[in-house]
Amino acid sequence: MRTIGALIFPGFELLDVFGPMEMFGLLSKDYELNLIAEHKGAIPSGQKLSAVADFSITERSDFDIIFVPGGVGTRREVKNLDLLKWIEKTARHSEFVLSVCTGSALLAKTGLLDNKRATTNKAAFKWVETQGPNVHWVRQARWVEDDRFLTSSGVSAGMDMSLGAISKMHGKERAKQVAKWSEYDWHEDSNWDPFAAIHELV
Amino acid sequence: MRTIGALIFPGFELLDVFGPMEMFGLLSKDYELNLIAEHKGAIPSGQKLSAVADFSITERSDFDIIFVPGGVGTRREVKNLDLLKWIEKTARHSEFVLSVCTGSALLAKTGLLDNKRATTNKAAFKWVETQGPNVHWVRQARWVEDDRFLTSSGVSAGMDMSLGAISKMHGKERAKQVAKWSEYDWHEDSNWDPFAAIHELV
Repeated sequence: MRTIGALIFPGFELLDVFGPMEMFGLLSKDYELNLIAEHKGAIPSGQKLSAVADFSITERSDFDIIFVPGGVGTRREVKNLDLLKWIEKTARHSEFVLSVCTGSALLAKTGLLDNKRATTNKAAFKWVETQGPNVHWVRQARWVEDDRFLTSSGVSAGMDMSLGAISKMHGKERAKQVAKWSEYDWHEDSNWDPFAAIHELV
Repeated sequence: MRTIGALIFPGFELLDVFGPMEMFGLLSKDYELNLIAEHKGAIPSGQKLSAVADFSITERSDFDIIFVPGGVGTRREVKNLDLLKWIEKTARHSEFVLSVCTGSALLAKTGLLDNKRATTNKAAFKWVETQGPNVHWVRQARWVEDDRFLTSSGVSAGMDMSLGAISKMHGKERAKQVAKWSEYDWHEDSNWDPFAAIHELV
């Protein structure tokens, strides 16, 4: 059983968090899910609907997997030193570090991605690049794996990356079973990325 | 601007709700999202993580679109007369009625789907059929549209159906734009359904 600490903050992107949590959550004997925020309780997403943070960042930092989503709120949180410190501390001791969309800007800001390959969503690519000038940003990828770090492209890419992470930890057949249960058309190839071509990189 | 009332209940399926809410939420000038439950406040999903119901069913039933997800909790809620009455009343006055996965069991139980075509997820197909013996259940479909009712297959199918609903209300180009923003590989064809073949219908 691995514990997952999924960070949320005001303005987190709904599907960045709950697509991946669905996939891991379908393996309830293998993963324990937790939502973490600077302050516990109701946290409004970028789409206004709120989720409940089970723990505050002062309460827990002991997770096997740290998960960092994106969303409009990342523009503010890249300046939140307490949050960045928690990410850095938690990631330092975790087995895997996952991000979706502009979540990689938060990881980059801590320096954790320095000299590593990583990706992010296409609609905010250039802004994310400025948050981590020493990161090797990959423009065309559904997700990128480097060492313990898995970073995904925008929003929906988080589901493909999560199934990729499940495949890594439990084998491809298990990942395919989760995709089947959730009736999800998994893009297994981390290099599949039609969105790099159709988005202008801004 | 259309208002959406998305029902949640203990044991709702995370992605059933938040996949569609992501898609509608990206059109924030066109849709106002609300989570509704029997009692307002924190409601635990089937994956344990909780969302916040903005309103109780006694507070609001005036929505342009009513949205009913599935999840393990539907097994209990098909016997919850107060909830079924709210669904029936709200759906009677709404422009569209949407369900994902076993959410169609709740719709069926109210009689709203009688003599209509509808679908549900494959892993609970036979149980759902028993909740609506007068419904024309469609075994192979990503989603089914009949009159004001759009019902989808399991979990991830809700995202494809929601983009289908957006296409219906705002045109296909708008739906494609939402898919692009969320880097989602939209299955536009409501008849696309590889899962009907690989699941045993139980």
